[in-house]
Amino acid sequence: MTPPLWVGLDVGGTKVLAAVVDDRGVVVRSIRWDTPARESSSEALEDVLAEAVLEIAQGDAVAGVGVAAAGFVDRARASVRFAPHLPWRDAPVRERLEQRLDVRVALDNDANCAALAEGAYGAARGVGSALVITLGTGIGGAVLLEGELWRGATGMAGEFGHMQVVPDGLHCECGRRGCWEQYCSGRAVSRTLDLRPAPEAYDSVGRWLGLGVANLTAAFDPELVVIGGGAASAGDALLDPAREVLAESVVGAGHREVPPIVAAALGPDAGAIGAALLARREG
Amino acid sequence: MTPPLWVGLDVGGTKVLAAVVDDRGVVVRSIRWDTPARESSSEALEDVLAEAVLEIAQGDAVAGVGVAAAGFVDRARASVRFAPHLPWRDAPVRERLEQRLDVRVALDNDANCAALAEGAYGAARGVGSALVITLGTGIGGAVLLEGELWRGATGMAGEFGHMQVVPDGLHCECGRRGCWEQYCSGRAVSRTLDLRPAPEAYDSVGRWLGLGVANLTAAFDPELVVIGGGAASAGDALLDPAREVLAESVVGAGHREVPPIVAAALGPDAGAIGAALLARREG
Repeated sequence: MTPPLWVGLDVGGTKVLAAVVDDRGVVVRSIRWDTPARESSSEALEDVLAEAVLEIAQGDAVAGVGVAAAGFVDRARASVRFAPHLPWRDAPVRERLEQRLDVRVALDNDANCAALAEGAYGAARGVGSALVITLGTGIGGAVLLEGELWRGATGMAGEFGHMQVVPDGLHCECGRRGCWEQYCSGRAVSRTLDLRPAPEAYDSVGRWLGLGVANLTAAFDPELVVIGGGAASAGDALLDPAREVLAESVVGAGHREVPPIVAAALGPDAGAIGAALLARREG
Repeated sequence: MTPPLWVGLDVGGTKVLAAVVDDRGVVVRSIRWDTPARESSSEALEDVLAEAVLEIAQGDAVAGVGVAAAGFVDRARASVRFAPHLPWRDAPVRERLEQRLDVRVALDNDANCAALAEGAYGAARGVGSALVITLGTGIGGAVLLEGELWRGATGMAGEFGHMQVVPDGLHCECGRRGCWEQYCSGRAVSRTLDLRPAPEAYDSVGRWLGLGVANLTAAFDPELVVIGGGAASAGDALLDPAREVLAESVVGAGHREVPPIVAAALGPDAGAIGAALLARREG
């Protein structure tokens, strides 16, 4: 008899990834669906998620489901308060899915889930403290301290992308100006690639990455900085300029150790792997 | 018979404050000395500290001594690695003072000690997470998470003053440009007061304070922000503009609670009180 499955759902703005994940963090099988449009109903999205769990289970029993949501999750991790690319608004996602699926559901935001996975199985495994920075459309972030997520007083810690680095700088979708993610994110890479050849574009965005990491290092003093997300696939073309700027500009340079900047290890599955891990821990 | 005393020493760039502190964090008695010049020897400074402990003890037994140093303390809290205004350079302060005084000595940087004191007896008492920001010549900072100090991987967490907020901005003593403390510190207040009348000066510096707190809130999501140091004596003239900017510019404004910004409660004794508390805890 197959032991009951742990399923991770990564609910992004364009795709839902459902994965069965084993106890070593390995994806046994996975499927992708399109995410219903932001204008559709909460129910339409929850329909997709419920269907995804049934289909990925292939008739086996499900022990628990973890949901990694691209949005702000409340401190109790019961509701999605706001998600710019999803129909959820103050939506009690955990309870709704538990009722539909009749299994325990765990919920967190996608950056936290990805960080949990990198901490347990990936680039931050065995590390005492790490910042995990995900360069997607914007910047996702999460804080691992003593191996655990620091979620903050309201559950919103790690929103590094909206630290202002340029007064009166570029307009941001958040309504403010000069946010770090306007200078350093997947979208910033694309924008810069329109203007410059690839090496220069990566150098420019990488230097902004290093500057932001220097600011975060002044505040958190982490042991390690992990960079994930699509833009991180550029590898050292992006990370080397970041390392250089960090070494030059971090506070106390010359009188301290500087945290290594490394690429994430788990790729685009990290969110679903972390969601399944969360479900396992809380199940 | 008097029970053995716990002594806190706050070693600043201009003054050394020695205080006997009771188990409720109350200063029983205190004395101030001038700090030997930066160009003098480590021994000259340690002479002053040893003399200070003997004099403040008034013949009573000393149970332990805590030292709050205005400088970078190593992770083991045994040495002062670098202190811009003191003669210590990679100085094994804890061991040297233990040998001279024949008592247990605890060491930490002054911002951490002040935060410990505010957490135990002051503005952050009973609070789950708080950032303590000290506006002196520069900006000192410390992070309280779950009531404990987060010191970081190398012991240098909380160096908020050297987060860059203006690219190619004002020159900073640290050798870089655009550091937050150039726009928001005791010295920034003095500089701005030379140019503008007091209400405008406090408004300007207070708005920079709010901007930096918004950045730190995006990253840490603390329950409370405590502002100490000499400049904080301006009170709401400084803190009200900071609160206004924080409420407007923090990430997720309108979808989250915003941490209150409050004045520190313990004043200039906070460092010595926290040092004595540290000694007590580790004694």
